[in-house]
Amino acid sequence: MTELSRFLSSRFSGLKAYVPGEQPKDTAYIKLNTNESPYPPAPQVIEAISRGEIEKLRLYGDPECTELRKTLAEYCSVTPEHLMMGNGSDEILSFVFMAYCDKNTGVSYPDISYGFYSVYADLYGISSEEIPLKENFAIDPEDYRNRGRTIVLANPNAPTGLCLTVEDIEKIVASNPDNVVIIDEAYIDFGGQSCIPLVRKYDNLLVVQTYSKSRSLAGARLGYAVGNPALIHDLNRLRFSVNPYNVSRLTMLAGKAAIEAQPYYDNKNAEIILTREYASAKLKELGFLLTDSRANFILAKYPGMGGSALYEGLKARGILVRHFNKPRISDFVRITIGTKEQMDAMILSLEEMLGI
Amino acid sequence: MTELSRFLSSRFSGLKAYVPGEQPKDTAYIKLNTNESPYPPAPQVIEAISRGEIEKLRLYGDPECTELRKTLAEYCSVTPEHLMMGNGSDEILSFVFMAYCDKNTGVSYPDISYGFYSVYADLYGISSEEIPLKENFAIDPEDYRNRGRTIVLANPNAPTGLCLTVEDIEKIVASNPDNVVIIDEAYIDFGGQSCIPLVRKYDNLLVVQTYSKSRSLAGARLGYAVGNPALIHDLNRLRFSVNPYNVSRLTMLAGKAAIEAQPYYDNKNAEIILTREYASAKLKELGFLLTDSRANFILAKYPGMGGSALYEGLKARGILVRHFNKPRISDFVRITIGTKEQMDAMILSLEEMLGI
Repeated sequence: MTELSRFLSSRFSGLKAYVPGEQPKDTAYIKLNTNESPYPPAPQVIEAISRGEIEKLRLYGDPECTELRKTLAEYCSVTPEHLMMGNGSDEILSFVFMAYCDKNTGVSYPDISYGFYSVYADLYGISSEEIPLKENFAIDPEDYRNRGRTIVLANPNAPTGLCLTVEDIEKIVASNPDNVVIIDEAYIDFGGQSCIPLVRKYDNLLVVQTYSKSRSLAGARLGYAVGNPALIHDLNRLRFSVNPYNVSRLTMLAGKAAIEAQPYYDNKNAEIILTREYASAKLKELGFLLTDSRANFILAKYPGMGGSALYEGLKARGILVRHFNKPRISDFVRITIGTKEQMDAMILSLEEMLGI
Repeated sequence: MTELSRFLSSRFSGLKAYVPGEQPKDTAYIKLNTNESPYPPAPQVIEAISRGEIEKLRLYGDPECTELRKTLAEYCSVTPEHLMMGNGSDEILSFVFMAYCDKNTGVSYPDISYGFYSVYADLYGISSEEIPLKENFAIDPEDYRNRGRTIVLANPNAPTGLCLTVEDIEKIVASNPDNVVIIDEAYIDFGGQSCIPLVRKYDNLLVVQTYSKSRSLAGARLGYAVGNPALIHDLNRLRFSVNPYNVSRLTMLAGKAAIEAQPYYDNKNAEIILTREYASAKLKELGFLLTDSRANFILAKYPGMGGSALYEGLKARGILVRHFNKPRISDFVRITIGTKEQMDAMILSLEEMLGI
């Protein structure tokens, strides 16, 4: 394995990068490991990427994403000034950690959550505080009241799938008036209630969403932040100091068409929710223990069998799921909700593994 | 105008973001202000973005860009381990400033160069040293020998278009063995000689290139770094700590097809060079003073007329060029090389402005 160079700034020598889920080059696997949608983007999205638009790739896109933000603002019932587009929500989260944390202001997030939060904290040398989830993996909203630090919460949380209510979150936001509270709603369209309506009331609330999951556009790289125009102005200052043309022209077009095709996605997301409930019931029948997920994945364990054995057993049978070798969740696997047929194949494999 | 929020980390309160050239929403202008190619991407690029591939946007791309790097490595006569792909070369430059500068290691670059270098230095709180170009706007290679700091040079330089030779650059690289030397070759395909062959010889040389100019893909967002595998490993550690899926799936495909269509681009770039020489001769006839540009732009001034007047006069006639209100170059405008017809229209407008 290649070593780092002798030139790299010493502050990064201990940095542990994020490890994304496997992206196998062959398509033989049933891929239930990175929370992609099993459904293609809406037909309108496919049409929007026309030959004429591909020819226009010779030109830079609009760094303000004006047209896209106009359409999205209407959908979110905010103004375009409440919105900033990112090259995926990861890029936005990176800006958020830069903007709102420093040597004076630390950050708090749950001990079990999106693995990237601790990477950003390390990358930017921020003092971070990991607050343990309750025994049942729920976030205790009390833990985040009057915290006096920047707060980052995924809602639904990943990889637990558990949701806070908007009321819970409002209390957190209201009780930390001098700190920004970031709600990462990557999975909100699969059963949670969005906090976007609160951004007009609280100047310290920032909501982050993505097109990767519920809009079938993981490969296009598009996410957005919704917040008070002053917060958006902060993030834009950083974006224009790093990479102003962060979103590809074709991705902007796809993003606008996807919002215009919302009924298609509502339909597909409803289907994913039904499939989640179907697969959850089946897994429970087999004796699995599950969290009450409101996301497009299930977190499941089988008593007496480690998460690693589940992962390996399924992989040997052509099914990729995600295993996190981390305290508290190492017995579990996270299974993305695919089509009903894919879930049936996964359950059949589990039955085989369990000798049922 | 919206103010920044009261939450933004104080270290960014004085940060001045990069100001990109205007990207007008109407296409009525002859757009010669952001160094885009006047030619569309190669037909193979347009075909590569097929309906089937657009449907696959539901899936994340390969964060390693394996296929693209394989093709590009062959073209560059290096191995894939010498390459990292970025969301435009701006993103790569941002990683470079993070990786190789800190409170111990400052950075040096010319006083007149790509405006983003000073933005990155400010953003990351790096001590920067702007070394004045010579009176004739040339870089004096002597200024960069044994400098003991990270060095960033655009070659050809922007907005002057002037080139250093590979020999000049090799001496700079060899005389700074304990610091990384970054050569930003955004415009190299319009008449300069690339330093890529030196990366196998020097572990402290990093070459950055882009698809935005000479491959007609500004709107797709693709750039790359070429260097010793250890340098690439450093940059990947940062990339995987910020945004591992930084390149859109469709952009990866476009990037691979573009390399396979190199004869198309060689042809178009040769045409742009001819047009540059044609337009330069015409401008000199009119009495303009020009640098000897090896890029897809001209830097020109008219004695007795400020750069701002040139910019405004051309804009009033439907032609957008770039004016930098900065010391030493405020009398100039930077004019992107378009088609011959566009250059003729520009020259006609100038004749009108000068009353010729």
